[in-house]
Amino acid sequence: MSVTREKILTNARELFARNGIDKTSIRAVAAAADVDPALVHHYYGTKEQLFAAAIDLPIDPEEVLAPLWETPAEQLGDALVRLVLPLWDSPVGSGFIATIRSLMGDSAVNLPRSYLQEVITVRIASRVDNPPGSGKIRAQYVASQLIGVVMARYILALDPFKSLSVDQIAETIGPTLQCYLTGPPPGLPSR
Amino acid sequence: MSVTREKILTNARELFARNGIDKTSIRAVAAAADVDPALVHHYYGTKEQLFAAAIDLPIDPEEVLAPLWETPAEQLGDALVRLVLPLWDSPVGSGFIATIRSLMGDSAVNLPRSYLQEVITVRIASRVDNPPGSGKIRAQYVASQLIGVVMARYILALDPFKSLSVDQIAETIGPTLQCYLTGPPPGLPSR
Repeated sequence: MSVTREKILTNARELFARNGIDKTSIRAVAAAADVDPALVHHYYGTKEQLFAAAIDLPIDPEEVLAPLWETPAEQLGDALVRLVLPLWDSPVGSGFIATIRSLMGDSAVNLPRSYLQEVITVRIASRVDNPPGSGKIRAQYVASQLIGVVMARYILALDPFKSLSVDQIAETIGPTLQCYLTGPPPGLPSR
Repeated sequence: MSVTREKILTNARELFARNGIDKTSIRAVAAAADVDPALVHHYYGTKEQLFAAAIDLPIDPEEVLAPLWETPAEQLGDALVRLVLPLWDSPVGSGFIATIRSLMGDSAVNLPRSYLQEVITVRIASRVDNPPGSGKIRAQYVASQLIGVVMARYILALDPFKSLSVDQIAETIGPTLQCYLTGPPPGLPSR
């Protein structure tokens, strides 16, 4: 990669991380990298594409998400799952997972996993094991929603999500968790 | 802290991280630390309490989770939300969040947040903004469940959850996401 392209990406990464995508313009990146804005456009296209390049995303998010804009709103729930999970099953996704895991460190992954899997899951599973054998999966669906809420609210601090009250969140995801625990039996792994 | 206690914790941390809680015995920790098992019991109590001490958890998980064992299964969904979220709002929780964020690094938090918040949320929100103003929160509830599934399936790799097929997950969480997108309007932040 040329020195100029490298310099554009480095400055873009810094500005995106500091100010977010909305408040970062191609013009600002160009100024920081001391090049003409037209050159940034020429090398990287739209601001979203520059963002993808800056964070070294080996896919174009616009392209990946495109099918969603044709999906009727009533089918988006299913479509989102079927779009997002295979991304993580792909070679690109696996590389990304390996990076996250190494960033977090083995203990930061293994210790909470062990506790969730071997203590909390087992305890909760015994309360909702109906039909027999479904309890662990039920408990782990609950874990998935709770982990996600904690990530969205506290770690990523998504705006406006982070400003919801505990009551509001309980009202919306309480029924979800209840459905995972005592609703229709979820599919179980085949092995 | 005495050298002996420190040595017990260090060895416990290593064994828990390597082998999980189930396959780590007090006896094995004692052997690794070259002390008598009775001493480990004396200093740290049960294996779960030793685990909490080893990962430097400033709360006793048994005590925190205790109210759940009295809650009827039909109310566990709501109870779990109301138990788990305040933990993260506490001083202990805030310290833990700061640690996770510093482990992950600013860019690893800010860049995905920015993309989720300013690009994906906005796009999806425009599809499901009914009543007007609810679209972003709807989209971010969806993000919370999807992030959690990715964490559970790929990063923590919870067993048996990680062995579910994409079809099975879509069948179970597709309706959840759909409900967030087009179901009853969620509560919105008051500010």
